[in-house]
Amino acid sequence: MIYSMTQIEARYSETDQMGVIYHGNYPTWFEVARTDYISKLGFSYKDMEETGIISPVIDLDIKYIKSIFYPEKVTIKTWVEKYSRLRSIYKYEIYNEAGELATTGATALTCIKKEDFKPIRLDKYFPEWHAVYSEVDKRNKAGENLEVVNGL
Amino acid sequence: MIYSMTQIEARYSETDQMGVIYHGNYPTWFEVARTDYISKLGFSYKDMEETGIISPVIDLDIKYIKSIFYPEKVTIKTWVEKYSRLRSIYKYEIYNEAGELATTGATALTCIKKEDFKPIRLDKYFPEWHAVYSEVDKRNKAGENLEVVNGL
Amino acid sequence: MIYSMTQIEARYSETDQMGVIYHGNYPTWFEVARTDYISKLGFSYKDMEETGIISPVIDLDIKYIKSIFYPEKVTIKTWVEKYSRLRSIYKYEIYNEAGELATTGATALTCIKKEDFKPIRLDKYFPEWHAVYSEVDKRNKAGENLEVVNGL
Amino acid sequence: MIYSMTQIEARYSETDQMGVIYHGNYPTWFEVARTDYISKLGFSYKDMEETGIISPVIDLDIKYIKSIFYPEKVTIKTWVEKYSRLRSIYKYEIYNEAGELATTGATALTCIKKEDFKPIRLDKYFPEWHAVYSEVDKRNKAGENLEVVNGL
Repeated sequence: MIYSMTQIEARYSETDQMGVIYHGNYPTWFEVARTDYISKLGFSYKDMEETGIISPVIDLDIKYIKSIFYPEKVTIKTWVEKYSRLRSIYKYEIYNEAGELATTGATALTCIKKEDFKPIRLDKYFPEWHAVYSEVDKRNKAGENLEVVNGL
Repeated sequence: MIYSMTQIEARYSETDQMGVIYHGNYPTWFEVARTDYISKLGFSYKDMEETGIISPVIDLDIKYIKSIFYPEKVTIKTWVEKYSRLRSIYKYEIYNEAGELATTGATALTCIKKEDFKPIRLDKYFPEWHAVYSEVDKRNKAGENLEVVNGL
Repeated sequence: MIYSMTQIEARYSETDQMGVIYHGNYPTWFEVARTDYISKLGFSYKDMEETGIISPVIDLDIKYIKSIFYPEKVTIKTWVEKYSRLRSIYKYEIYNEAGELATTGATALTCIKKEDFKPIRLDKYFPEWHAVYSEVDKRNKAGENLEVVNGL
Repeated sequence: MIYSMTQIEARYSETDQMGVIYHGNYPTWFEVARTDYISKLGFSYKDMEETGIISPVIDLDIKYIKSIFYPEKVTIKTWVEKYSRLRSIYKYEIYNEAGELATTGATALTCIKKEDFKPIRLDKYFPEWHAVYSEVDKRNKAGENLEVVNGL
């Protein structure tokens, strides 16, 4: 698949009294990784929001395999598992500092108007974004394996 | 099922710039609701931790149906969907102030030793807890419907 | 002074690996207490925001005296130390479950337009709010001591 | 003074519905910057904790001058304003992406035993750390101006 790799250093504020990174902080990490993936494909979620469209998470799934500890430097692999004009499913794998798979996750996102929360079609509002995501989807299905760093 | 009802008032700090409660804050709300459920059954997670056993979330699933807004007062319905000596699955339904189902979720939890992260069996370490959860499981399967407020 | 008392139960998510409530979570608790104080005086910060005015914190000071632990039930005493049309200084005292003073704090807040971040005068935009805060200020200076529960 | 420069990219999860970085997230940013400063001087807070000593914040002060927005890349300048065996005062300046001073802050920290929260003297428990901080203090007082990147 077409994927990005994002590094995050676990913060002390993200620990809990179990002595590990609190499980509720992982959605934030996925978001940081997703922002980075989008940015590496040449887009900006901030720019989308400035047009009045927001993209909420509507489904979240996380499997915690190994705990992560402060101040570990983790790496998150991110890709789009499934894309349609109305919904994207992103997947994530978090690797700990030892390179072991520590966490897997998935989020589904839609795009809606901020004013009335009505869903919109990506191809109608952001045709360039749609073109690139369609291309990503096609190449993912073709079995391509590529780390995206600076555009396709 | 045997369930508890927990009220939470959405905090300003929990909003994001979409103008809604940030999706990453829901695991915390589930935890507040789970703590309340456990407490209403007569137990204390804090007491468990003081014996050197911790209970991490190993699986998390959330479906976001309706956005929640500051300072909404939401109600979380919590129950144990499945119980075994090694793992419990809790389910959650969040109702917004209008009484609509806004979110559903599930978490799987195990119990492990804090010193070596080895799993333990609840019946061996906390027999009373095991007895009550077994009873809850039995009555859930029998189709009982009961809001627990102060013990079974 | 005219003050309110707000109860908060420390959440597990608010702990850090020191085993105490993370120091960075106290601004959120102050805000919950401030929202409650405002509400008990008969106003709603949400209603203010809906008119296009926001009220950011511009100065924050916290002294940590005693650690707070999960799942302590703390009580926050909140009052307005100083009021002018352009700025309010709120003070806070957090008492732990044993009734000991655990934390003191202060926040300064202004009111600004959301569209351009220009400061506004409270008496011009919210004359009723101004009237009550002026009254509170006068009675504070006169040495009155009153817990506000449901309006002055 | 002897200072470090730390870059942080504002996260979406750190915004609130004012559309800015929530004011309660700044203590976390200060901590990230402090961890970086300590690391650049050759020490590790994690190593300190593993000996049973923790270093809580006992005083926090923040002045919010300009709002910070998602996904701004800010730079935090960090230095030790005052050092004694029992207490260190760190100061912080946050510069926004345009290079303007957006925030100033200070935190006071002590070192205590995790088991009984009794204060300890840095020179007795961590003589090397004490030596470097004494050197920093001396050179700060002599008016030296140096960005620390990899040790003194």
